[in-house]
Amino acid sequence: MNYTTWEQRVRKVEPYTPGEQPKTDKVIKLNTNENPFSPSPMVEKVIKEYNEDALRLYPDTRAGLLVDALAKRYGVDSDQVFVGVGSDDVISQTFLTFFNSDKEILFPDITYSFYDVWAELYRIPYRTVPLKDDFTINPDDYKCDNGGIIIPNPNAPTGVLESLDTIEEILKANPTSVVVIDEAYIDFGGTSCLPLIDKYENLLVVQTFSKSRSMAGMRIGFAIGSKKLIKYLSDVKFSVNSYTMNPLSIIGGAAAVEDEEYFQKTTQEIINTREYSKKRLTELGFTFPDSMSNFIFASHKKVPAKEIFTKLKEQGIYVRYWDKPRINNHLRITIGTKENMDKVFEKLAEIVG
Amino acid sequence: MNYTTWEQRVRKVEPYTPGEQPKTDKVIKLNTNENPFSPSPMVEKVIKEYNEDALRLYPDTRAGLLVDALAKRYGVDSDQVFVGVGSDDVISQTFLTFFNSDKEILFPDITYSFYDVWAELYRIPYRTVPLKDDFTINPDDYKCDNGGIIIPNPNAPTGVLESLDTIEEILKANPTSVVVIDEAYIDFGGTSCLPLIDKYENLLVVQTFSKSRSMAGMRIGFAIGSKKLIKYLSDVKFSVNSYTMNPLSIIGGAAAVEDEEYFQKTTQEIINTREYSKKRLTELGFTFPDSMSNFIFASHKKVPAKEIFTKLKEQGIYVRYWDKPRINNHLRITIGTKENMDKVFEKLAEIVG
Repeated sequence: MNYTTWEQRVRKVEPYTPGEQPKTDKVIKLNTNENPFSPSPMVEKVIKEYNEDALRLYPDTRAGLLVDALAKRYGVDSDQVFVGVGSDDVISQTFLTFFNSDKEILFPDITYSFYDVWAELYRIPYRTVPLKDDFTINPDDYKCDNGGIIIPNPNAPTGVLESLDTIEEILKANPTSVVVIDEAYIDFGGTSCLPLIDKYENLLVVQTFSKSRSMAGMRIGFAIGSKKLIKYLSDVKFSVNSYTMNPLSIIGGAAAVEDEEYFQKTTQEIINTREYSKKRLTELGFTFPDSMSNFIFASHKKVPAKEIFTKLKEQGIYVRYWDKPRINNHLRITIGTKENMDKVFEKLAEIVG
Repeated sequence: MNYTTWEQRVRKVEPYTPGEQPKTDKVIKLNTNENPFSPSPMVEKVIKEYNEDALRLYPDTRAGLLVDALAKRYGVDSDQVFVGVGSDDVISQTFLTFFNSDKEILFPDITYSFYDVWAELYRIPYRTVPLKDDFTINPDDYKCDNGGIIIPNPNAPTGVLESLDTIEEILKANPTSVVVIDEAYIDFGGTSCLPLIDKYENLLVVQTFSKSRSMAGMRIGFAIGSKKLIKYLSDVKFSVNSYTMNPLSIIGGAAAVEDEEYFQKTTQEIINTREYSKKRLTELGFTFPDSMSNFIFASHKKVPAKEIFTKLKEQGIYVRYWDKPRINNHLRITIGTKENMDKVFEKLAEIVG
């Protein structure tokens, strides 16, 4: 090809649109699935007491302190753990590393809206697989020739958890593809498929510190899998940027993992508030798939989601709404503190009452 | 193609090898061009006083505080500034965004050893252009059909600074390519080509906080260019990871930019020590191209570089050595404090004396 302008050579993409980050403190922010609790007090402690050379010197490329803490917590070897700048970084590099064939990769039609963005960016052919009407997966849909599979479990924005049997059925049918299970929300009552990594060398499990560990700001995600998978992923990572994890994220992340008691306590509190919220929403005339995450994907019997979304926003309550086929009558409401949820239900009662 | 194993679909790459990060405090570390001074005291102050929600909530996707501080400092609009997780992140995304054609991109044969790694990773055709024997560029070599150009100025690991005239000559000959000038070391006495961005819409200037701003740990790099370039780059960035900059890097980075006095003072001190080091090295029988960076690329008249490298390391002094054609008799020595440099010269005198 002959180029007559530099713009002809630009990789043009339609970027992902993240949820709004309103600046005012007066807002109740339930639109990006953040944790209402602060991170473990141990995190703040180590961050405020960092070594004076931490800012000046390049960080440990291995992020060893964090990798070793995760390995210990999840009962795997350190060379089965990969860390990145949020699970978005981990999954982006997973796409680049493993979804590298001329076959279509597969993921659900209703899912994390970044998957198709990465596929477009890296020019990976893909096909979305329709969920059933109850938002669950039919494993048979994944028994076909493909270039790789990624499934979030629990799914977002639906909150629906699939069983380990379903995951394993998909794994059994796909020995020649890498299968990625994105477990961003697994800690809110789900069962992780981590025990399957010993059996399936091609299974990569991705998790994040942004939800259950209250550290969305510090940008920490991780993947666990066979040593082979982690080696391939690390080679690509070291070809993009050797030093991605800053030392405060490394020490803060390790401190969060080590404070298991705080993690269990705050996670359980969110689960309790979620179950309470299900009752309240039902009383208000909402329906939703049963959520095992830190959000509820709700639809009202009478009032359109878009109208509720707008009215809540006017009241300083931010939830998430997508004007997309199949989900344009749903709201994704993050579980906040019980106090904040009660304020939301009060406003919802006025709107739908 | 038919795949019989998942490994056949993996993107296989030869990763970049960063300089060693020795753990012991007793080492004199002059191998990765870090700054011997701590960051501005203002950086530590803002990092230790961060807002309690900073860790818990997703950061500002715009990294507005940092972007605006950079725009003000460099006299450009905020939408002419792009920030990333170190200049490695910025340049990696630059390769992905702008070097997107079937033509070869061009860069010097002796240069930052990450360029060919990114080209290989993203499957970008490339050709290295030999430097002259004195390690300077012949601009005529860049007057040919190409898919983009990246040149570090001053170059690494040589330390050689090219004039703005040379840079502009290359720009004039390449209106249909994006030309990237990697100015990681520009603050140590070089003249930035930033004033040329108003004239050349296709010029992207990349700088970093890892050298002159003493913040290698916090992973901050940035690019300045035309609004069009920054828009294309941002679209790709938002397709990889919306939230890359953590809030402590954002506030710390902004504080560093605002403390101009500290920046000028510490940078001048490094320049002074570099000029002193040139005299001492010459007295010891070393030759080197004239460096305008925070390192010197030195070769000894009698003793092979590899031998000096090994003997220094045995003494706890880390410098950088590459066993590569054309540069395998050179050492790249970072400029540390005057006190540490004197210790190095003492050991060098023993080794080469």
